[in-house]
Amino acid sequence: MSELENKAIISKQASFATALLDDKTKNAALESVRLALISNKERIFEANSADLARSESEGLDGPLLKRLRFDENKLSDVTSGIQSLMSLEDPVGKIKLHTTLDDDLELFRVTCPIGVIGVIFESRPDALVQIATLCLKSGNAVFLKGGREASETNRVLYEIIRDASYSSGIPEGWINLLTSRDEVNAMLGLSDYIDLIIPRGSNAFVQHIMKNTTIPVMGHADGVCHTYVDEFADETKAIKIVVDAKTQYVSVCNATETVLVHESLKDTLLPKILNALEDKGVTVHMEDEVTDWHHEYLDYEVSVKIVRSVDEAIDHINRYGSGHTDAIITENFDRSEYYMSKVDSGSVLLNCSTRFADGFRYGFGAEVGISTSKLHARGPVGLEGLVSYKYKLYGNGHIVADYASGEKKFKHIRRDI
Amino acid sequence: MSELENKAIISKQASFATALLDDKTKNAALESVRLALISNKERIFEANSADLARSESEGLDGPLLKRLRFDENKLSDVTSGIQSLMSLEDPVGKIKLHTTLDDDLELFRVTCPIGVIGVIFESRPDALVQIATLCLKSGNAVFLKGGREASETNRVLYEIIRDASYSSGIPEGWINLLTSRDEVNAMLGLSDYIDLIIPRGSNAFVQHIMKNTTIPVMGHADGVCHTYVDEFADETKAIKIVVDAKTQYVSVCNATETVLVHESLKDTLLPKILNALEDKGVTVHMEDEVTDWHHEYLDYEVSVKIVRSVDEAIDHINRYGSGHTDAIITENFDRSEYYMSKVDSGSVLLNCSTRFADGFRYGFGAEVGISTSKLHARGPVGLEGLVSYKYKLYGNGHIVADYASGEKKFKHIRRDI
Repeated sequence: MSELENKAIISKQASFATALLDDKTKNAALESVRLALISNKERIFEANSADLARSESEGLDGPLLKRLRFDENKLSDVTSGIQSLMSLEDPVGKIKLHTTLDDDLELFRVTCPIGVIGVIFESRPDALVQIATLCLKSGNAVFLKGGREASETNRVLYEIIRDASYSSGIPEGWINLLTSRDEVNAMLGLSDYIDLIIPRGSNAFVQHIMKNTTIPVMGHADGVCHTYVDEFADETKAIKIVVDAKTQYVSVCNATETVLVHESLKDTLLPKILNALEDKGVTVHMEDEVTDWHHEYLDYEVSVKIVRSVDEAIDHINRYGSGHTDAIITENFDRSEYYMSKVDSGSVLLNCSTRFADGFRYGFGAEVGISTSKLHARGPVGLEGLVSYKYKLYGNGHIVADYASGEKKFKHIRRDI
Repeated sequence: MSELENKAIISKQASFATALLDDKTKNAALESVRLALISNKERIFEANSADLARSESEGLDGPLLKRLRFDENKLSDVTSGIQSLMSLEDPVGKIKLHTTLDDDLELFRVTCPIGVIGVIFESRPDALVQIATLCLKSGNAVFLKGGREASETNRVLYEIIRDASYSSGIPEGWINLLTSRDEVNAMLGLSDYIDLIIPRGSNAFVQHIMKNTTIPVMGHADGVCHTYVDEFADETKAIKIVVDAKTQYVSVCNATETVLVHESLKDTLLPKILNALEDKGVTVHMEDEVTDWHHEYLDYEVSVKIVRSVDEAIDHINRYGSGHTDAIITENFDRSEYYMSKVDSGSVLLNCSTRFADGFRYGFGAEVGISTSKLHARGPVGLEGLVSYKYKLYGNGHIVADYASGEKKFKHIRRDI
């Protein structure tokens, strides 16, 4: 048996125990983790300096170095993130359905953790803290694999969280750190112990994961988001929103990649939008130059298409989009309701920027990722996406034969919860 | 493009339209389907007689012939099933979360259909009606593939449902019938159009489906269900429940395959349980003869194991069970709570038969199947398992730059729903 498989077995056992932890214990552990991060900050910053120096010498570019940096500001972000997580309701043990099937035969649907979750994330080391603490609060065990650039910072953050949580009585083995691609590939085969894989990263990487495991995968491969400027759009809002959706942060999945504009605005609003984008340094690709509408720029580039109707916009999005996040700019409510119902995406937005589609902005505290799947969690995924449920049925000697014979009949009384 | 792919494209388009249907339209269509089934009953019975005659000449055995039969009783079951489905709340368009992110920036989580669902089911033709009407009520399009034995009955049922629903304004292409294994295999490759596959059938068949598609699969490969008789069990209840769980219907996934008995009952209750099982014609395999605890008999056979503690029972179930349905017989409430929390299965039961784990008995009207996955729906799956959700965010010119700069702050006010 490999060392990894052994860890997975221990982690699975730990997950049966973390599933039973009450909210008070989990919050006390989160508070210990928070305090340990603060009291060990010099150790974190030192490890991060080593990562930054190595990455800089390896030629990592500015925006990526910025994401890699873990300083006082990032520390303050993650510790206040932990505090807000502590203030959220325990997602485990919530009764979601209660039906009296018959006298003394009571059915409950109760939330429970998923089990053991493998998360592979990009270069931001603050993601490690967010993901680990979301898993702790939701009673899951976790295998973490961060970006190679952040390896020193991740190791130190992992050790701090592990030690602080173990001291607070969280079962040993609930948290694990993977350090190589080989370990990630080996994890994909451990379907007996790992219940869910959440991959974050490039399209190619996520596709690789999806094709090489029978473990359920939650996440998204790409984010080809659209903003449709309808004929009833308000000019000021349209310009402001398109610029924000494209340029507020270009390298993220919820940035707009394609702007669809109603043809009635071709000579009026469209030139103003294009000017505003060009002022921000965006290269505009008009439809005759676009060869691949599936393309995700993640840069100061945008595709623009003129459409004859809201239906043409919807068809384009449902065909070329990735089901991630798509906005409409209009002052016509019927139009927006029609668009928001027919566009088949995790988030559909009226008169605001696609950049809002995010777990923190949606008020979930943090997110483990954004899902474009329609099963389980869709859109930004917070605590609720990290729990499953089970049915608990309490009887008193009940057998099915009595109901099959017609001697007894089900009452099926739905109870308020 | 293959004929099947063409059908899938049409079905996907139809699903965008069925997603918008209101409950009144869907219920009117269900009522048309119900009346059409009744008025065409002779046609159905005739087709079923042909299937029965052919299957009998091919040597199909008694219990399978019984499942294949579609007579007045089955017709009455499916038509009253449709009536109860009509009485259920529309699962689509339900608001599950409402948060005010900021002034004039309102977030809603709203349920929506999954899209196009492929269901492969066994020889019972009444399953076709149940699945088709569950999909109609939940606004999904569907590809149906039934057992070869029932091919004539399925074709007639499909035509009746198709024609009655089209006449009631349900978009053409929402329902499709597949007639060969080749078509099923081809469907597994249509991930651009099919959103979910629900396979029902043998372990080997379900495994085959899971390994040969990147489309999400919901269902269960096997049902190795356990009944644990605890040291604090009531004798009468224990005997009655074990007999029912094993023998009330042996060929189904929620029948008990392994009985675990606390060692303190070895010379008292255990012999009585074994006698009662043998009286019903059950062959008992005591632990020293059992070579594979994963084995699903689906017959008048049972494995029996003596355990020293509730923890040994739980460990056995979490290791060898299939996460389907597991019961405990005890009069000790702490003991049952502990068992029901730690056993990692879709349904955990106290003092009642594992045979209760079923969509109809749970009060869901009907089921499309039972899921042992922890993602999305778990346990018996009714209407709620056939919907996803999307986030709808209503703004008024909001951009993320204002929040990133600190000029504006999120309010995140959770609203009652």
